[in-house]
Amino acid sequence: SSTSSSPLDFPYVSPPHRNLMVDLISTVETRLGSQLLPCTLPPDVQSFQNQSGNTHGCLHIRSGHKSSPIDFIFGSWLHSELPTGEALNITSLSAYLSPSTDAPNFLMEVIQSSPTLLILILDLPPRKDLVLHPEYLQTFYEDTKLDTRRQLLDKIPEVKPYYSSSLYLRSVVSPTAITVRIEADAGGPGRLEEIIKYHLDPIAKVVLGTWLDQCACVKREVGETQRAHLQNRDKLIKSKSIEIDLEPNFPRLFGRQTADRVLGSIQQVFFKMI
Amino acid sequence: SSTSSSPLDFPYVSPPHRNLMVDLISTVETRLGSQLLPCTLPPDVQSFQNQSGNTHGCLHIRSGHKSSPIDFIFGSWLHSELPTGEALNITSLSAYLSPSTDAPNFLMEVIQSSPTLLILILDLPPRKDLVLHPEYLQTFYEDTKLDTRRQLLDKIPEVKPYYSSSLYLRSVVSPTAITVRIEADAGGPGRLEEIIKYHLDPIAKVVLGTWLDQCACVKREVGETQRAHLQNRDKLIKSKSIEIDLEPNFPRLFGRQTADRVLGSIQQVFFKMI
Repeated sequence: SSTSSSPLDFPYVSPPHRNLMVDLISTVETRLGSQLLPCTLPPDVQSFQNQSGNTHGCLHIRSGHKSSPIDFIFGSWLHSELPTGEALNITSLSAYLSPSTDAPNFLMEVIQSSPTLLILILDLPPRKDLVLHPEYLQTFYEDTKLDTRRQLLDKIPEVKPYYSSSLYLRSVVSPTAITVRIEADAGGPGRLEEIIKYHLDPIAKVVLGTWLDQCACVKREVGETQRAHLQNRDKLIKSKSIEIDLEPNFPRLFGRQTADRVLGSIQQVFFKMI
Repeated sequence: SSTSSSPLDFPYVSPPHRNLMVDLISTVETRLGSQLLPCTLPPDVQSFQNQSGNTHGCLHIRSGHKSSPIDFIFGSWLHSELPTGEALNITSLSAYLSPSTDAPNFLMEVIQSSPTLLILILDLPPRKDLVLHPEYLQTFYEDTKLDTRRQLLDKIPEVKPYYSSSLYLRSVVSPTAITVRIEADAGGPGRLEEIIKYHLDPIAKVVLGTWLDQCACVKREVGETQRAHLQNRDKLIKSKSIEIDLEPNFPRLFGRQTADRVLGSIQQVFFKMI
């Protein structure tokens, strides 16, 4: 049963946050499931915790069939009790395409470090240099009107821009990326849940829908040279995302041994080492 | 005398705005002047206005010597009286490097459409895909600590993020770009001048200094293939900047005939058509 679909249940986050993640994953599984292999991660990589038991991680990765343009779909959550009594909760869903297509990837990460503060990264990261390929920018970012979603969210008073401390991550995202901090101190946790339910939820669903309709399920012509270039660029992004996001944090959160085991498994799937 | 240095006097903007622009241009001329040819634009392209005389433009472009890594330095101002009685003032200074180096360009544009509202774009736009070249990101953006300047400005309450309506322009800038709206409604024009004098001025000077020290005056090894690639990418950025920034606005502001004359001259310098 550990390889069946949608085993991520997001037990630690608020109901609207959990509903959103479950809906997004279910949408992906419904649309792309027939192209995906079961998750082959060992059980102690699908779910793991630190020695004191106050930090818990859960991971689900499904690679695409050889003939599919999907490289893999990556879902995860992390829960860590903080010394303050509050908790850090991170949930993520991302999708990487293979070099048989040059269409953008999908990236969503929700980081909640207090009941009233949430960071959202939601984007279709481009797989080409947009400066050199204005027609690509037109197709995937202008014609899809993705920026109107960013603008909608921007109108909410609690929504502020978020700047990742990693300049590399800032370079990876598109010019329509939603990278925001939502500070609901005044309205409290109820207000944050309201913003998730009525604003984040519909916007994330539209962005995922755009990715499914315009990226994952559209055939693109990719020549041999271009394919090698994509492979190279994709590989670098995957290495860098492990190097920036996971390597500095996992040993601290889970201890060296667990971190090595989990990161090793992620690398095997990311770089098809099996 | 129309080809002498620094003929741009910025007569219509506030004293701190004018002082900043004059200082920046004088710094560039002092450091790079010996590598620059005189401005060869015809007098009616160096200064031009519309038929009713309420819109005025001034342009100064100096190309680099053949042996210099400077492609050209571009300075300009535009003043247009608005039907509201207020005025639109745009001042700009940018510097493009040649394909003999891959170091970033310099870009500064200040757009003031009312006495209390100012848009600032200040950046060293990269000349490579940063995702594919993390070592380039490290050298020009991380090691130079450019982001600390953006963060400083971000702390001022009147400073809000600015999103260009052109996704292409958003793609051209670096992850440390300063792209902000400064809304000084409450404090009035005096407060805006204060922000220019005490915040924009020192920050713009540090960014220009970084460009001069770390980009314009540093020798970089560029191979033949890489040089052709840079030439291609640079050319596209120049075309796009004319297409997005000038072509939609100049005919409206100056009339078709003047717009054609000025844009034609800019294209000749941008693409070395003489």
